[in-house]
Amino acid sequence: MEYKIALIGCGTVGRGLLEILDRKREALRDDHDFEARLVAVSDKVKGSICVPAGIDIPRLLDLLGRGEKLEAYDERRSERTEIGDPLDMIEKCGADIVAELTPTDIRTGEPAASYIRKALRAGMHVVTTNKGPAALYYRELADLARTNGVQFRIEGTVMSGTPVIHLFETGLAGNDIREIRGIFNGTTNFVLSKMEEDGLDYADALKLAREAGYAEADPTADVEGFDAAAKVLILSNVVLGGSLSLEDVARAGISGITRTRVQAAKAANSRYKLVGRARVVGGKIEASVRLEKLPLTDPLAGVMGARNAMAIETDLLGTVFIQGPGAGKVETGSAVLSDMLAIHRGLAIRSS
Amino acid sequence: MEYKIALIGCGTVGRGLLEILDRKREALRDDHDFEARLVAVSDKVKGSICVPAGIDIPRLLDLLGRGEKLEAYDERRSERTEIGDPLDMIEKCGADIVAELTPTDIRTGEPAASYIRKALRAGMHVVTTNKGPAALYYRELADLARTNGVQFRIEGTVMSGTPVIHLFETGLAGNDIREIRGIFNGTTNFVLSKMEEDGLDYADALKLAREAGYAEADPTADVEGFDAAAKVLILSNVVLGGSLSLEDVARAGISGITRTRVQAAKAANSRYKLVGRARVVGGKIEASVRLEKLPLTDPLAGVMGARNAMAIETDLLGTVFIQGPGAGKVETGSAVLSDMLAIHRGLAIRSS
Repeated sequence: MEYKIALIGCGTVGRGLLEILDRKREALRDDHDFEARLVAVSDKVKGSICVPAGIDIPRLLDLLGRGEKLEAYDERRSERTEIGDPLDMIEKCGADIVAELTPTDIRTGEPAASYIRKALRAGMHVVTTNKGPAALYYRELADLARTNGVQFRIEGTVMSGTPVIHLFETGLAGNDIREIRGIFNGTTNFVLSKMEEDGLDYADALKLAREAGYAEADPTADVEGFDAAAKVLILSNVVLGGSLSLEDVARAGISGITRTRVQAAKAANSRYKLVGRARVVGGKIEASVRLEKLPLTDPLAGVMGARNAMAIETDLLGTVFIQGPGAGKVETGSAVLSDMLAIHRGLAIRSS
Repeated sequence: MEYKIALIGCGTVGRGLLEILDRKREALRDDHDFEARLVAVSDKVKGSICVPAGIDIPRLLDLLGRGEKLEAYDERRSERTEIGDPLDMIEKCGADIVAELTPTDIRTGEPAASYIRKALRAGMHVVTTNKGPAALYYRELADLARTNGVQFRIEGTVMSGTPVIHLFETGLAGNDIREIRGIFNGTTNFVLSKMEEDGLDYADALKLAREAGYAEADPTADVEGFDAAAKVLILSNVVLGGSLSLEDVARAGISGITRTRVQAAKAANSRYKLVGRARVVGGKIEASVRLEKLPLTDPLAGVMGARNAMAIETDLLGTVFIQGPGAGKVETGSAVLSDMLAIHRGLAIRSS
C-alpha cells in the first residue's frame, strides 16, 4: 500500500526520517506492505518542493547536504506543483500523511497547530514530533482527526523513538495508570551524570554537554526544566486524560545544583535526577518537574548520560519501567516511522 | 461492542482474568467500548459450563473459591448448553474469543495446539498464555488465523503482563531487531538475588523461593533453564522470524551456582544472572540460556527478585530496555486482556 507523504519542516528529524525511508524501502515494502512516496516538503528556511509523481529521496538529501534550497531540486517544471508555505502545500500536495516536524513553541503551539488542523480537515493523517500541539491541543486535534476519519499521532514528542505512547496505547491498554515518573530530558541527565562521574562543576559539565551537541547555545529550556515540563504536560493530558496547562506543572530545573551536593549524594548511595512526575491523586492530576535525590535502587537512578526513562505505576502490573534514547536524528525519525506504520495497520485492517 | 468469551483452563490465570473482567466491566465499556460476555469455561479438573446468555462472573468465582465443580453453577437446565471437553466446548459455545490458558507442554504443545487450531478454524480469535503452541507452532497458527480472518495472540507467554509482544508489534515496528537479551525466569532470579543479598546457599535460597510461592515442588523447569529457553524460543521464532526447535537453544541452568561464586562476583562489582539471548548473526539465529556474570552497569544486572526484563538491540534506536512483572495471576490476566483489546481495536477500526 503506497502513501503519499508530505513533510513540514526539514531539519534534523526530517532528514533522519528521509534517510530511514530511503534505507528501509525494501524492508518496509516486503515486511509491512508499506510504501512511501514523498510528494512535498516545505521548510521555513530551506524553501519548498512539490512533485506529485514522487521526489527522489537520495537526490533531495544530497541537495540538502550541500546547503541548497529545496527549489533547486532538479525536476522539469511540468512535473512540479508550485507551492509556497506549509498551508499552501497542504492545499495542493494531495498527501495521505503529513509529518509535522517543526520546532516547538510550547506557549502557543503555533504555527504547527494551524498546519495540523488544516491537514486533518483535509482528510490527511498527521504525525508530529512537535511538543506544542501535543501538550496544548491533543484532545481537540484527536477529535478532529476522528471526525475526519484519520489519525493524529505523537510518538516522537515525549521520549523520541522510545515507544512510550505506543506502550500506553496498546500493551498497557486496560491498566489504570496511577503515576508516571521519568527522566525526560537528556541534556540535564548528561550534565548530572558528568558532575558525578567526572567530579565536574555545573558550568563545566554544561560546557561539555554543549560540545557534545546535547545542549543549545541558550540552554534555558533544558536546564530550567521547561522541556521536561512540556513532556509531563503531554503525559498528563494524553495518557492521564487531564486538561492541564503548562502553569499547572510545578517546575524547577538543575541550575542550582553544586558539585558538593552531587558528590554528597553519591557518598550516601543516592543520585540527583531531574524527575518529571504526573500522578492521579483523588481524581486530580499532580504534575511536576524537580530535582530529586533517588536511592540507587530506584531504576530511574541507573539511567546515565543522555538517555531517557519512564517508570509507570499501574493497577494490574505494578511498575513497568522502560528506558531508551531520548533524542537523536534517526531515533526521532524512527518514532515518525512507527506512527506511519500504525496508521498503515489501521488502514490495512480496515481494508482487509 | 460485546464479545462472547470462552475459557479453556480455569486455574490461576483464568481466575485472574475473570476477576479483572468483573472489576473493570464499566471502565472497559466506557473507555474502550469493550464488553465481555463469558459464555463457557472448560477445565480438565474443574469441569465445564456453557451458558450462551452469559455466566455471572462473581457467582462463578465464588463457586471456584469454594472448590466446587463448574457444573455446580446454578442455572436452569434450559439456559445451559451441555458441553464436555474443550474441543466439544469450541464446537458448541459460539464464542468470539477463546482464551487458551492451560499449562505448557513445551515438547508437544498439546493439547493446547489442537484446541487453538480448532478454534481458529471455527473463526474464533484465540489468545493464549501457553508457551508450547507459541514456541512450536506460531507461524502455522498465525497463518491459520489470517486465513480465517481472526487473530492469534500470545502476549502472556513471554513476560506475563509486561507487554513485550505489543512492543515489538507496534512501538518497535520498522526497527531491525539485532539481539534480545533478557531475564525471563523470575524464580531463578529470585534465588540468585537471595543468595547475594542474604548470603544464602543455593539450597536455602531455593527453599525460600518455594515458600514464597515462586518455585514448584519440582523446580527443574525453572532452575535448569527450560522455562527461559521456551521464552527464548518464542522470541527467536516470533520476533526474529526463525524456525528453531527447543534443541537449538543452548541451555544451562543455575543449579551449579555456589554462594562463594555469587559473593565473589559481588566483591568484583558484578552479578550472576540467568540470561536468555537470541541474536541474528550472519542471517542465522543464535539462541541460548546461561548464567552470565554481568557488570553492575548492565541494566539487566539491576533486575532483582522475581521481576523480568529485556534489553533489545535495534538498528534505529540502539538499546531499548523494559522491565516489569514476569509472573502472577492478575499480571498474566492483564496480558490476556491487552490481547483482547488488540483484537477489539482491529475489529473496531475495520467496522468504523
